[in-house]
Amino acid sequence: MTKIGTSEHTYKQFDAELEAIRTQVLQMGGLVESQIQRAVEALVTGNKELMEQVVADDHRVNALEVAIDEDCSQIIARRQPAAIDLRMIMAVVKTITDLERSGDEAEKIARMAKLIYETDRLHMPRFSEIRHVADIAIGMLREALDAFARLDVATAMDVIKRDAQVDEEFRAILRQLITFMMEDPRTISISLEILFIAKAIERIGDHAKNMAEYVVYLVKGKDVRHVAIEEIERETMNQ
Amino acid sequence: MTKIGTSEHTYKQFDAELEAIRTQVLQMGGLVESQIQRAVEALVTGNKELMEQVVADDHRVNALEVAIDEDCSQIIARRQPAAIDLRMIMAVVKTITDLERSGDEAEKIARMAKLIYETDRLHMPRFSEIRHVADIAIGMLREALDAFARLDVATAMDVIKRDAQVDEEFRAILRQLITFMMEDPRTISISLEILFIAKAIERIGDHAKNMAEYVVYLVKGKDVRHVAIEEIERETMNQ
Repeated sequence: MTKIGTSEHTYKQFDAELEAIRTQVLQMGGLVESQIQRAVEALVTGNKELMEQVVADDHRVNALEVAIDEDCSQIIARRQPAAIDLRMIMAVVKTITDLERSGDEAEKIARMAKLIYETDRLHMPRFSEIRHVADIAIGMLREALDAFARLDVATAMDVIKRDAQVDEEFRAILRQLITFMMEDPRTISISLEILFIAKAIERIGDHAKNMAEYVVYLVKGKDVRHVAIEEIERETMNQ
Repeated sequence: MTKIGTSEHTYKQFDAELEAIRTQVLQMGGLVESQIQRAVEALVTGNKELMEQVVADDHRVNALEVAIDEDCSQIIARRQPAAIDLRMIMAVVKTITDLERSGDEAEKIARMAKLIYETDRLHMPRFSEIRHVADIAIGMLREALDAFARLDVATAMDVIKRDAQVDEEFRAILRQLITFMMEDPRTISISLEILFIAKAIERIGDHAKNMAEYVVYLVKGKDVRHVAIEEIERETMNQ
C-alpha cells in the first residue's frame, strides 16, 4: 500500500465530492424526465391518478434543487475550486435551475390535463401531435443530461440545434388549433388549454437547450450562449 | 496617512470588486426594464422603429450577462469568498439569468408587435389591459432590483406576493380574449398574438419573483424557493 500525501488525499476527496454532485444532477434529471413523461402520459390517457401523482411529486424535484445548490456553495467555500472544477460547479448551479423549471412545466401539464378532463369531454382532440413534440423535447433533455455526464460537446451541439425543431412543431400545433377553433368556436377554451400545454413542452425544449449550452461552456471554457450555432461549430472543428 | 496592511488592503479591494458587480447588475436591470417599457410602448402606439430598436438592443442585455457571469467566476477563483460574500455572488449569477430571460421576453413582445401591425389592422383590440399588467410586472422587476440594491427583505417579500396579482390579471385577459374570439372567430389569430404577449409579461413577473427570492436567500442565508409565503413571513417576523 503506498502512502498518500495530504494534498493528494484532499484532491481525491474533492474529486469524489464533485462526482457525487454530478450523480445528484443526473438523478434529478432522471426524476424530471419521468415527471414530464408521466404528465404527457396522463394527458393522453386521461389517467387522473397519474396527474395527481405528478403534481404531488414536484416537491421532490424542488428539494433536490435546494440540496444540490447548497452542496455547490459548500464545495466552493471549502475547496476553492478553479478552472474546470469551478466551471463544473457553475454549470451545475445553472443546470439545476433549468431542471427545476422543467419540472414546473411538467406539473403545469398535469394540472392542465386535470382541467381538460374535468370540464370538456365533448370536444376532446387527439393528442398525437402533443405526444410527438413531447417526445422530441424529452429526447433533448435526456441527451443534454447525457452530454453533461460524458462532457460530450458533439451531443450538446446536437441538442442545441434540435431546439428549432421543437419550435417548428409548436407552430404547426398552433396553426392546427387555429383551424380547429375557427371551424367550431365552442372548442376555443379547450384549444387554449392544449396550446398552453404545447407551450409548456416548447419551454422544456428551451431548458434542454440551455443545459446543452452549459455543457459546451464547461468543456470549452467558452460561453456559447447568444452565439450563432455556425460560429460554435466552426470553433469546435478548429480545435 | 496610516499604512494599510496587505490583508486589509486586499479586503478593501475585494469589497470594491463586489460593489462593482452589484452596480453592473443594477445597470443590466435598468437596461432590461427599459427594454420591457419600450416593447410595451411600441405595441400600444404601433411605433415600428421602436420595435426594431428593442429587437436590436437585446444583444446588449446578453453581453452584460456574459460579462457579469465571467466576473463572478473570476472573483470566486481569486478571492475564495465565503458566507454572505459567496451568497451575494451566487445570487448575482442567478439574478442575471432571470434578467437575461426577461430581456428575451421584451424582445419577443417587440417581435409579436411587429407581426400584429404587419398583418391585421382591422381587428385591433385596445391594449389597456396589456399595459396595466405590464405596469405591474415592470414595477415588480424594479422593486426586486431595489431590494437587491438595499438588501431589503421586506420589499423582496412584497414582490413575491405581488406575483399572484400578475397571474390573476393574466387570467382576466385570457377570459376577455376568449369572449372576443367566440364573438368573432376572425379575431382568433390576433387574439392569440395578444395572448402570447400577455404570457410574456406574466413570465417577467415570474422572473421578478425569482429575483426577489434570491434577495431573501442572500440576506437570510436561507433558501425560500419552494416555501410557502406565510412560512417565510412567520420566520421573518420572529427574527
